[in-house]
Amino acid sequence: MPVNGVTARGEQQAVIARVVHAHQTDEELGAYLQTLMAEFEKLRELGFSQLEIASVREAARDYNRTRKKPVELAARAAKLEATGVNTWQKARKENDFSLFAPVLQEWIDIVKQEAAAVEPTSDVYDFCLDKFERGASTKRLDPFFASIKTPLISLVRQIRKTRQGPNRQFLQSKDLFSGTFSLETQKRLARRFSEELGFEFNSGRFDESVHPMTINIMSPSDVRITSRFSETELSSGILATLHETGHGLYEQGRNAQACKEGLPVSRPPGMGMHESQSLLWEKQVGMSAEYWEHYWPIILRSFSSLPYSEFTEFHKVINEIKPSFIRVSADEVSYPLHILLRYEIEKGLLHGSLQVADVPAVWNQKMEEYLGIVPQNDAEGCLQDIHWGIGLFGYFPTYTLGAVYAAMLFQAAEKEIPELRKCIKEGKFKPLREWLREKIHTVGSLYETADELVEKVTGSKLDASCFLNYLSNKYGALYNLSSAEVDAVTIRS
Amino acid sequence: MPVNGVTARGEQQAVIARVVHAHQTDEELGAYLQTLMAEFEKLRELGFSQLEIASVREAARDYNRTRKKPVELAARAAKLEATGVNTWQKARKENDFSLFAPVLQEWIDIVKQEAAAVEPTSDVYDFCLDKFERGASTKRLDPFFASIKTPLISLVRQIRKTRQGPNRQFLQSKDLFSGTFSLETQKRLARRFSEELGFEFNSGRFDESVHPMTINIMSPSDVRITSRFSETELSSGILATLHETGHGLYEQGRNAQACKEGLPVSRPPGMGMHESQSLLWEKQVGMSAEYWEHYWPIILRSFSSLPYSEFTEFHKVINEIKPSFIRVSADEVSYPLHILLRYEIEKGLLHGSLQVADVPAVWNQKMEEYLGIVPQNDAEGCLQDIHWGIGLFGYFPTYTLGAVYAAMLFQAAEKEIPELRKCIKEGKFKPLREWLREKIHTVGSLYETADELVEKVTGSKLDASCFLNYLSNKYGALYNLSSAEVDAVTIRS
Repeated sequence: MPVNGVTARGEQQAVIARVVHAHQTDEELGAYLQTLMAEFEKLRELGFSQLEIASVREAARDYNRTRKKPVELAARAAKLEATGVNTWQKARKENDFSLFAPVLQEWIDIVKQEAAAVEPTSDVYDFCLDKFERGASTKRLDPFFASIKTPLISLVRQIRKTRQGPNRQFLQSKDLFSGTFSLETQKRLARRFSEELGFEFNSGRFDESVHPMTINIMSPSDVRITSRFSETELSSGILATLHETGHGLYEQGRNAQACKEGLPVSRPPGMGMHESQSLLWEKQVGMSAEYWEHYWPIILRSFSSLPYSEFTEFHKVINEIKPSFIRVSADEVSYPLHILLRYEIEKGLLHGSLQVADVPAVWNQKMEEYLGIVPQNDAEGCLQDIHWGIGLFGYFPTYTLGAVYAAMLFQAAEKEIPELRKCIKEGKFKPLREWLREKIHTVGSLYETADELVEKVTGSKLDASCFLNYLSNKYGALYNLSSAEVDAVTIRS
Repeated sequence: MPVNGVTARGEQQAVIARVVHAHQTDEELGAYLQTLMAEFEKLRELGFSQLEIASVREAARDYNRTRKKPVELAARAAKLEATGVNTWQKARKENDFSLFAPVLQEWIDIVKQEAAAVEPTSDVYDFCLDKFERGASTKRLDPFFASIKTPLISLVRQIRKTRQGPNRQFLQSKDLFSGTFSLETQKRLARRFSEELGFEFNSGRFDESVHPMTINIMSPSDVRITSRFSETELSSGILATLHETGHGLYEQGRNAQACKEGLPVSRPPGMGMHESQSLLWEKQVGMSAEYWEHYWPIILRSFSSLPYSEFTEFHKVINEIKPSFIRVSADEVSYPLHILLRYEIEKGLLHGSLQVADVPAVWNQKMEEYLGIVPQNDAEGCLQDIHWGIGLFGYFPTYTLGAVYAAMLFQAAEKEIPELRKCIKEGKFKPLREWLREKIHTVGSLYETADELVEKVTGSKLDASCFLNYLSNKYGALYNLSSAEVDAVTIRS
């Protein structure tokens, strides 16, 4: 968008928000929903399907929450969303948090007013968390984050220590992979990788953008994913592609009939479950040794500048653990600590125990404590993410919930799919994809929370131990940690 | 859009059309408009500005017409628009008119029903013409097209004859300009050309697309133009850029306050006036010798493969007259004959004197008669344009009206702006741009028809003679036609 377009865009978004709001709060719709909810317990014997019953539950919830949300607040939020992004970009570019502070403060005010109007009995941050992850609350997430905090800080530290050790310098091999990699070849390969995981190009597009993303044009038959590529670094484009393909597979796998009928049951039970699908394909599959055993020869054939080497080298490089200031380029061990930091700051801001002006200092102090590094400036620190510029509070935790669900789901899949790792080694992804389609994608929000769905599929509720075991086993082996070092991280469940 | 997305897209467009329709026909709006229209003659003395009065007139017309248009017809049209494009693309690809015929027939039915509902006393094709060019009708356009038909057929024939002549082979110089032209350099130059005409990049974007186009994101501060470039041919990308820049300048020059307030007076009085702005910059300016006297040295510096030559050579090449099957690549002498052909076919289809199945044969017979060439297949013939696939009947004539307005406006500008041609020769476009902004862009539809506006600015109503004089003078000189040959084409007004 050209810079002068921002005002008009804000006004347009406000108009659209008002039109959508009017439809979402239509009284005729409300009357139907009221009738259905009055008979909710009897719907099954009245012949409603489970998908329909879940849709009534979701639609009634949406309706009631939207009715309670003041329309002027929605319009104000829509307008701030447009101008907020611009201000955030400017503040980041000029590395000046004070430019962004008023936007952040206005979002906090809007979110508080919204929470007070919609769920007056709920805690304001619980209201935010529940918006993106049904059933999430600080009561539920405080102990969850507490259970991963110490083990992950400890694992990051141990791995950083090993880099001093003489025989653990495998990361020098990264030099093998620096060079110039044709963007055209990378794009062609990325398309192939995506297609081989099962992304359906007749029902989707694959393009480039500055920020990789997935959108669904209101139909599982029109799903758009994007990736980005670097001419000098090979792995980031591949991993971003696998990540977005995971989101894309969820979208293409949604219940087609329910989507066509606009039934809310077709949507995921939370953003964590959606993220679990991108992370499952990117991390559990795409960063496994088996995956690279299959694809490394293909990569070698495509880039003649690459020296011949074992797939294990590339596998080690993409699994490098190296604390970074930037969340989106963080490795999978430090990533949850980036999230924890944001979770604590958001909670503080919304509970009033932290003031906007203090965010930069608190950010840097937590970075030091969790990851042992301090950003040089706010552009690399508290201004790095777009989320607070567009009013997304309570969203960040879904990234880590997604990582944990992914580990749990992959473990369950390994138990149920014969020779799953062998399939991956042979580039056969259909068994896993179909399993996820049946267990996750088509199920949508049949169950009210992701927790319930995960329990149905894996037999247990949200549980960090599976994730921690996965990390300590994988990185213990890659970094030759002693079993004592590994044990210090692992929670035996 | 992926192929499987088409059904969902059609449904979405139908939904949006219904929502928009509900707002456009809102009874409260209608009551306000009725009150205003009852006092229309007194609005001026009641303190309304001329812009406001024109807005009332336009809004009331829109409202009444939309109220009369059955909502189910609008939804049906929106749906057919999505599927129609796809069918047209398929028919063109497979060169099979019979695939497209049912879509064309359904559009004719829809248009007839719409005309009968909205303007029952109007002729159906007049209804179509008036939709895109207020006040246009066959009564007005039949004599207009009659006045250009014979002169243009004759001019095309005379020019084709000269190509046999020994000293008139300048087009061989085209070989000078074949080669490989870096797309990046072309894009950089195109951006510069656009900027130097006055396109404001803080209020617009310039991108690439398969079909060059201009859109306005509901604000003169967010105008998007696109162009396309060929690695082996230099002029098409430049001319497409100048064309779209002309549209873009109109959009950026619209009355900002009226746009902000959503007043319909900010829009052009018809598509012909919009097209006049693209054609004025592309043809009158961008295909003039003066323009290339300035820009040819810049082109030479940018492409080292080009041999040094006079700007006059390039000027001749881009002004080559060579009948083509394809309207969008037609030269400016044969272009109006492509339009005449479509005008006659549309009129026949809507008046019932021509059946859908007969379109291909009639098309080819008219191509032979007007341009002396017959397309080998329907893909290059009656299936070449998207317009009938999306229900645009009555639109084509605005291209030629635009060309005529452009010639009239440029002639008037030459009289009013001191040394206009000298300015162009020096790459100074501000005087012309500001003149157009004042006389055309900001005026919008203050006057009800483009005819009225043109008369205010130039002193005369739509008149083909100015256009014919321009063509015969320019091409007479370029092709060394004798004055007897030129006289045969010229209408002295």
